[in-house]
Amino acid sequence: MAAEPLVADDLLEREGQQVRDRVDALFDQWLAAPDDGRQRLFEAMRHAAIGGGKRLRPLLTLASSRLFAIDEQRAIRAGTAIEAIHVYSLIHDDLPCMDDDDLRRGKATVHKQFDEATAVLAGDAFHALAFEILASPDTHEDPFVRSELVLELARASGQDGMAGGQMMDLAAEEQQLDLTAITRLQQLKTGALIEYAVEAGAIMGRQPADARTSLRGYARNVGLAFQIADDLIDHEGDQAVAGKAVGKDAAAGKATFVSLLGAERARAQAELLVAQAIEHLQHHGEEADLLRAIARFAVQRDR
Amino acid sequence: MAAEPLVADDLLEREGQQVRDRVDALFDQWLAAPDDGRQRLFEAMRHAAIGGGKRLRPLLTLASSRLFAIDEQRAIRAGTAIEAIHVYSLIHDDLPCMDDDDLRRGKATVHKQFDEATAVLAGDAFHALAFEILASPDTHEDPFVRSELVLELARASGQDGMAGGQMMDLAAEEQQLDLTAITRLQQLKTGALIEYAVEAGAIMGRQPADARTSLRGYARNVGLAFQIADDLIDHEGDQAVAGKAVGKDAAAGKATFVSLLGAERARAQAELLVAQAIEHLQHHGEEADLLRAIARFAVQRDR
Repeated sequence: MAAEPLVADDLLEREGQQVRDRVDALFDQWLAAPDDGRQRLFEAMRHAAIGGGKRLRPLLTLASSRLFAIDEQRAIRAGTAIEAIHVYSLIHDDLPCMDDDDLRRGKATVHKQFDEATAVLAGDAFHALAFEILASPDTHEDPFVRSELVLELARASGQDGMAGGQMMDLAAEEQQLDLTAITRLQQLKTGALIEYAVEAGAIMGRQPADARTSLRGYARNVGLAFQIADDLIDHEGDQAVAGKAVGKDAAAGKATFVSLLGAERARAQAELLVAQAIEHLQHHGEEADLLRAIARFAVQRDR
Repeated sequence: MAAEPLVADDLLEREGQQVRDRVDALFDQWLAAPDDGRQRLFEAMRHAAIGGGKRLRPLLTLASSRLFAIDEQRAIRAGTAIEAIHVYSLIHDDLPCMDDDDLRRGKATVHKQFDEATAVLAGDAFHALAFEILASPDTHEDPFVRSELVLELARASGQDGMAGGQMMDLAAEEQQLDLTAITRLQQLKTGALIEYAVEAGAIMGRQPADARTSLRGYARNVGLAFQIADDLIDHEGDQAVAGKAVGKDAAAGKATFVSLLGAERARAQAELLVAQAIEHLQHHGEEADLLRAIARFAVQRDR
């Protein structure tokens, strides 16, 4: 795969650009800075949220909502709420007491550009914003759907999801994890929110839980493939291209998929996961093409 | 009032103790520590949430839910979710980059007892937990009620509520605020969540928004009275009794109700607010007695 060029996927190019524009437009609308003592908070939130990032999670929500003919604007609203959770987690993870990063999405991290207190508050405000959006009638007219969207997001982001996974990651600095433990850690830290982004389309489409099995399988495979690709970028990537610091895991002596498997086997594993993800979509027609393109993109990227 | 003894209010004593016990029991149940790398996170959450605090917000939710004959256990669940938001805000506000406090509810703050990263994550996990509880069918069988509970809590805690107010408070260190500005700051920083705690009972009772006007009036007055009483405790209180550092506002040169009005006028203002709060309940009978007792307690306390 190292010799293989980045596949130009027209569908992903086109849809990805559209999602990035629409996510930016929603954040711009939601974060109009007020003329009072909160101005700095809103400026920090705009700095963190607007004009950067792959917008993988909103793209996944849009792609899965295609399977159920969900209104696009609603899918983008839900996806942007999920992106708000992702942005909050990046702001907090970048803090000096956590990963202590200066660079994110090619810009200064929030605590560098503003200050630590503002960064803590900006993360907290994004956290609340996500739930405000999902619980709003503008996102879905059915209150049961809204309530389910909130419940599953809270589970994906809290102690049994993202926050729990981040704690495991911090604890891992004092012990060498094996492959099973790393997989579990990543399932919580990044996998749960990626799975939720896919599931959100099914929730909005009022699909019963048992009908979501194949989508969950897709999401789990894609989430893990993305994480392995992230480990590869950290292992051999270029900071200028990645838009964030690289080589951190090795410097911290942290076990990753790459340190445990070696780069070659890790890459093969990621490609196998992508193939499995696409296999889960076999009963769907071209309405699942965007999900397929995202799965392929998971490993064909340098940032 | 300085000469007046703490009024022994049997109702408040009895109900307050019951709420504290039930809130502790729920947190104990929700925060059973798992046997994995998240153990430290759960220990930190238990340290922050169990066995301390006045539990004002759950008490307010229970008291307002009495007006609408809501099932008590459900009111306590919703109230404990609101307490989770309060606990998250205390953990984050105590961080070195914010108020830098070592003592909270008579115990070491989370970042002192554990570390800063764990404190950030524990706050984040409480934030998600609150929404998970409110969106759960165990809290209310009507998804519209669950969705409304979530929407209003998100508004009370986010950029236009608590997080926005905390930003204003940080910004206020560089400018002297007047009474209007302080009132607005406190309305966002602490008032919004206290109002929501009262409103939650009305939401669970499916009361239309216009029927909630008197309750909102009550809540706004009580919230402000509580804040003035807090300023008085900071101004003249005893750290050992308060269970947290006192004298901080004056040391920071911060404008407060006490610095702007003087202690005597501030106390008179708080008592006027309590009388107004009780006046808002005039059309209610003894089912509002707990709300009345809480209003009186707002100013008759030393911690």
